[in-house]
Amino acid sequence: MARWEPNTRERLVRAALDLFSEQGYDATTVSEIAERAGGLTKMTFFRYFPDKREVLFAAGQEIHSRLLADAIAAAPGPATPLQAVAAGLDALTGTFTDDRRELAARLRAVIAANAELRERATFKKAGLTEAVREALAKRGVPELTASLAAELGIGAYYRAFEQWADPAGQQTLTELTRQALEQLRAATATLG
Amino acid sequence: MARWEPNTRERLVRAALDLFSEQGYDATTVSEIAERAGGLTKMTFFRYFPDKREVLFAAGQEIHSRLLADAIAAAPGPATPLQAVAAGLDALTGTFTDDRRELAARLRAVIAANAELRERATFKKAGLTEAVREALAKRGVPELTASLAAELGIGAYYRAFEQWADPAGQQTLTELTRQALEQLRAATATLG
Repeated sequence: MARWEPNTRERLVRAALDLFSEQGYDATTVSEIAERAGGLTKMTFFRYFPDKREVLFAAGQEIHSRLLADAIAAAPGPATPLQAVAAGLDALTGTFTDDRRELAARLRAVIAANAELRERATFKKAGLTEAVREALAKRGVPELTASLAAELGIGAYYRAFEQWADPAGQQTLTELTRQALEQLRAATATLG
Repeated sequence: MARWEPNTRERLVRAALDLFSEQGYDATTVSEIAERAGGLTKMTFFRYFPDKREVLFAAGQEIHSRLLADAIAAAPGPATPLQAVAAGLDALTGTFTDDRRELAARLRAVIAANAELRERATFKKAGLTEAVREALAKRGVPELTASLAAELGIGAYYRAFEQWADPAGQQTLTELTRQALEQLRAATATLG
């Protein structure tokens, strides 16, 4: 039954990821996810997520957008657009401690295996890009520059995430993202 | 009945757009679209599109990706990455004659009104970006540069499309896209 527990949301996410990994996304029902999350009911699930798909995205998208936007807003006044983006990325990637690496690898595998999830993941990426763009616009960054800086920053984050989710990796997500951002910035000089 | 006509696909797209505009996307059935397209059956619809949503995206995504990729492949050997992208965009935007402007405006309005369609549109944009990136990679453009050039090019195309779909506009989509690409390129110098 749906006793109150502080980490219900987190348990639902982990249960969903377990079941999607074991038996596939399509074959898994919301009831099974709730049951696996410690004998919860479907009703409890729907207090946290609108549907089965959102269990993998909704929480992350909201929390990550806020982490990015808040840190970009708090960056020092003289920071360049890319420096402000870097501050946002540091805040975001700092929350990905090493114990989440294995979870990230499984999330990546589950999404790669399902067209519906790949589509949703693309929409999440666009949502994060939009959050960064908006936060930069609020700092007075001109529109085109804000769009570009947002694309570069989120592009760097996703590239770094791919590397970080590899279990053989050694570097933190923060280090990898900083490197990727610098590489993308340098590549702008090679467009012709 | 499903007599063979060369423009069945096009008629289905227009019928869908009409109905989505009139009564909304959610309220429209595949049978209604087929009927409106000249008394076709649901079965005929499904020979062209896998579902109701794809009627607005499938054809465009496939054809547009091919136009971009072919023209990028055919660009002169010494072309820079952005010059090759510009050649791809010229080939794509050249197909948007002025009589399609009104259709584009309605498509934009229908997509903006529905979350599911907005998500699919974002996925299409990512698909076009990927097609450009791949075509550049085949020319030997290094991976980061190819990704950046693809983002800039498709970003320019979508910005230009927004302006072009405005009925008050005068310029062609090709002109608007060239201008947007040049503006985005210039903005890379302002990232900091």
